[in-house]
Amino acid sequence: MKRVYLDHAATTAVSPGVLEAMLPYFNVKYGNASSLHSFGEEAKEALENSRNVVAKAMNASTDEVYFTSGGTESDNLAIQGVALAGREKGRHIITSKIEHHAVLHPCEQLEKLGFEVTYLNVDKTGLVDLANLEKNIRKDTILISIMHANNEIGTIEPVKEIGMLARKKGVLFHTDAVQTFGKIPIDVRDMNIDLLSISAHKLYGPKGVGALFVRRGVQVKPLIHGGGHEKGLRSGTENISGIVGLAKATELALKDMPAESVRQTEMRDRLIKGILTLKDSWLNGHPTQRLPNNVNVSFKHIEGESILLMLDEKGIAASTGSACSSKSLAPSHVLTAIGLKPEESHGSLRMTLGKQNTMEDIDYALEVLPEAVNKLRKISPFAR
Amino acid sequence: MKRVYLDHAATTAVSPGVLEAMLPYFNVKYGNASSLHSFGEEAKEALENSRNVVAKAMNASTDEVYFTSGGTESDNLAIQGVALAGREKGRHIITSKIEHHAVLHPCEQLEKLGFEVTYLNVDKTGLVDLANLEKNIRKDTILISIMHANNEIGTIEPVKEIGMLARKKGVLFHTDAVQTFGKIPIDVRDMNIDLLSISAHKLYGPKGVGALFVRRGVQVKPLIHGGGHEKGLRSGTENISGIVGLAKATELALKDMPAESVRQTEMRDRLIKGILTLKDSWLNGHPTQRLPNNVNVSFKHIEGESILLMLDEKGIAASTGSACSSKSLAPSHVLTAIGLKPEESHGSLRMTLGKQNTMEDIDYALEVLPEAVNKLRKISPFAR
Repeated sequence: MKRVYLDHAATTAVSPGVLEAMLPYFNVKYGNASSLHSFGEEAKEALENSRNVVAKAMNASTDEVYFTSGGTESDNLAIQGVALAGREKGRHIITSKIEHHAVLHPCEQLEKLGFEVTYLNVDKTGLVDLANLEKNIRKDTILISIMHANNEIGTIEPVKEIGMLARKKGVLFHTDAVQTFGKIPIDVRDMNIDLLSISAHKLYGPKGVGALFVRRGVQVKPLIHGGGHEKGLRSGTENISGIVGLAKATELALKDMPAESVRQTEMRDRLIKGILTLKDSWLNGHPTQRLPNNVNVSFKHIEGESILLMLDEKGIAASTGSACSSKSLAPSHVLTAIGLKPEESHGSLRMTLGKQNTMEDIDYALEVLPEAVNKLRKISPFAR
Repeated sequence: MKRVYLDHAATTAVSPGVLEAMLPYFNVKYGNASSLHSFGEEAKEALENSRNVVAKAMNASTDEVYFTSGGTESDNLAIQGVALAGREKGRHIITSKIEHHAVLHPCEQLEKLGFEVTYLNVDKTGLVDLANLEKNIRKDTILISIMHANNEIGTIEPVKEIGMLARKKGVLFHTDAVQTFGKIPIDVRDMNIDLLSISAHKLYGPKGVGALFVRRGVQVKPLIHGGGHEKGLRSGTENISGIVGLAKATELALKDMPAESVRQTEMRDRLIKGILTLKDSWLNGHPTQRLPNNVNVSFKHIEGESILLMLDEKGIAASTGSACSSKSLAPSHVLTAIGLKPEESHGSLRMTLGKQNTMEDIDYALEVLPEAVNKLRKISPFAR
């Protein structure tokens, strides 16, 4: 059966070039980077070369990049780490209602420890309002965490402007760039970013590895203590093959970005246009300020999970809400924040494109999807 | 040049069978285990099968195994997690002076949060004294964390007896089994273990993945919050290829254990016997209650790092102190705890054997090592 993967925001296949780069580090250059012998030196060299590649890709210095086990850990380390290191300065944090749970849940934990968190509203397209952000900055605000682009609806936030504001007010600025790194340009200097989270498996690298950029001089308390790896910020034997994979994936993503960005935007817009010809359907997120690979639509009178099942039967992989909380019955917090009613959220479908997709895939989706929607509406008690 | 790797306690090469098992999960079955489509189901199935394999290997139930990014994270999660979940019951923790830093440093963090930690002495061979442990258990003791075997000197602690004592006193018992899992038998039921940490890369699996056994009913507070993976105990997209690698490595280790244990013990004892013919040398750790693959010796009047360099020039990879803290100039806390003076610690050499080693490797080491020791003693100011 034809299989069309349209869930690249959930995870991606490791690129052949990435896997090839990783392979020697499993069983040839397999040393521990802390070891004082040639096996250790090989590992150490790969580690530092990889750090350099990742740093350069975001215009950071090599010593500002710390490897972690992935985007979720990076977000936790940034938020808990900055808060616990800065608690004497202040205990107020600003974030938005549409952040990933890897940001929201650490914030909720901090509330239990006596921190105050402001969760900013967003507009109907998912954008944070800068004037509203500025109004909410207080003397005791120590951190602003606003994502670079949303994982569900693809809206790209004005991070450069947020960074300028944060800098002006003397507040640290963290951004979750898990969905943007390797897809749209990032420059931590130009954007005034103090901390930035990335994850390898969203950009054709392996699962289980990510990084946190921490601007030089920013104080962060570690979450995981031990042998003092990553300058004491993240202990644990470095996952060299994974880190090499992240670096190679970064390299390839930067190279591919100009062409892929155009190609995926074309596919995205064709898919959106095709879907919106169906009655009682609409696009979620921003019409233009959105990730090149993100389509998020809603269909009235339909359960998203039912569409997923029907698409899956036809070999198409998509998602409803975010994959990370797919087990949850609650409506997506993102779709709720942009004003959708629970029943509208439940009828949402996310399709996220990637390198392997072609216009044929889009045409196939546009062939299968209307059938599925019509079939489901026929049996839906709500549609009558 | 001949390369002889004698640093298997630092890390191991991924076995061909393990790598083979992992490969499809990079770019064929690459789904996110949370996704509701066939790619997701493939990943989810691999995840749960792997959990079952790891659980069975320690006589745990499948739902008692939680995957992490490695041994250090498992130790942190166990210690910080149990302490923060149990702080209303009591704030006293007992551990030993020879634990890995991944146990000691989280304990030190907890001291800053108002917990009290007792660091038990060990005897000259590295053994914890049971009567002394019992004496130190108080009404407010909530956790005992004693490693299964020491990473530097290889001493195997009486965990079954410690488990019985903990059970009798109603205190939770965590053991760091990073150096023992897959090398010597572990049965969490028989040994009365409540929490147990393991790491894949010490048993011919990949770096960046490990697991924590948590006995059903034991309360643990997560360190990393987000999408609610691993039943909320450890959020973050599961590292499926790594987890499959851990499971395959576990399977192979259990199969190889009876034969490898005998084979490595023979190599170990030959290496020890050969080294002890050199004057002013001695064995650190227990003569018999030690890991089959661990040799730790000291040479008077010599710097361990100098021996390492000379061995490395001859293609032999070994370590002094533990690799995880090899950058530190302080004498090993383990060697200090068993009574070595700083200058004696600095003259220590750890050689840890593995599956790939043969008696030829041992003979080669026994050919190179005496030369190196004699040469260094000739130029040592202390030896005169």
